Amino acid sequence: MNFCPHCGAPILLKVPEGDDRERHVCSQCGKIHYLNPKIIAGCILEWEEKILLCRRAIEPKYGLWTLPAGFMEMGETLEQAARRETLEEACAEVGILELHTIISLPHLSQVYVFFRGKIKDGNFAPGAESLETQLFTEAQIPWDELAFETVRRSLETFLEDRKAGRFKTRVEDLWLPKRHKQGDDKSSK
Amino acid sequence: MNFCPHCGAPILLKVPEGDDRERHVCSQCGKIHYLNPKIIAGCILEWEEKILLCRRAIEPKYGLWTLPAGFMEMGETLEQAARRETLEEACAEVGILELHTIISLPHLSQVYVFFRGKIKDGNFAPGAESLETQLFTEAQIPWDELAFETVRRSLETFLEDRKAGRFKTRVEDLWLPKRHKQGDDKSSK
Repeated sequence: MNFCPHCGAPILLKVPEGDDRERHVCSQCGKIHYLNPKIIAGCILEWEEKILLCRRAIEPKYGLWTLPAGFMEMGETLEQAARRETLEEACAEVGILELHTIISLPHLSQVYVFFRGKIKDGNFAPGAESLETQLFTEAQIPWDELAFETVRRSLETFLEDRKAGRFKTRVEDLWLPKRHKQGDDKSSK
Repeated sequence: MNFCPHCGAPILLKVPEGDDRERHVCSQCGKIHYLNPKIIAGCILEWEEKILLCRRAIEPKYGLWTLPAGFMEMGETLEQAARRETLEEACAEVGILELHTIISLPHLSQVYVFFRGKIKDGNFAPGAESLETQLFTEAQIPWDELAFETVRRSLETFLEDRKAGRFKTRVEDLWLPKRHKQGDDKSSK
């Protein structure tokens, strides 16, 4: 951030009075512009015991497989965001959802939230950001071609829970080196 | 947002190509500036069956009681954010935490995350943003003087679960009218 989004004057990095860390402060109007972590919401969806994955038609990780997920938008609930992303990326309507994983990625200032559920009617198709969409049995999951560690981890725990016959919400942290960048620093569909 | 944080030129509201909603787009450099929901993290902490609340020394809701909580910062995990806020507002170190509630507030584009746990050593005291900190039995909780609906809801479900002898993570949505504004639109300690 170089210029004040409010008045257009140059931004200074300084610690505001009563604060304990540097913020982006306007040199003219004094407004403090805070930066905060972003939420990515998505779904682990089953149809006849198979799991729905999407092959990415966009960067980062073009061509790799992922669960339908994306940046939560203003004015949404977490579940609405997960359903919207699933509709956009996999053209799939989803039934009842339960929270499965919440994974903090502190190095990227992101929090991933994956719900689990079933595809409502078995229909799905690639959306604009997917090259293809496909149902995978556990044995078919392309572990070596997954786009993100959060997706891998969510699939692993989902399959573990399914095998055990009881699901539980997992709160986890993933500390990845910056070179394995998960998503870029912007909201998108 | 009136000016581009990157180059300082005026911002236009328009729907970028391939997008489906209006974004803040720079009239000069073309950069798209996305807005996203913010996360507030906090703790429901017990000590000898009593629950720790803080009386707010800041607006909004000055003088009302709340659970220690605040905006998640860049570079943190959810649990780190909840622990830091508890240390800042109630000078309390916390033991093991379990996720209790995740509440979406779509009208404010906020997501509240409350963990439950115990105060590590029984020590607590008001931090800079609290007028006082106090332990409350269930019967003593000041229900008519709580700052936020998310706090009320988290306390209600916590007490319900404690009575039932089993805790479970709740994913809920709260659709409040704008006039009952929960927190302001900025990050802060």
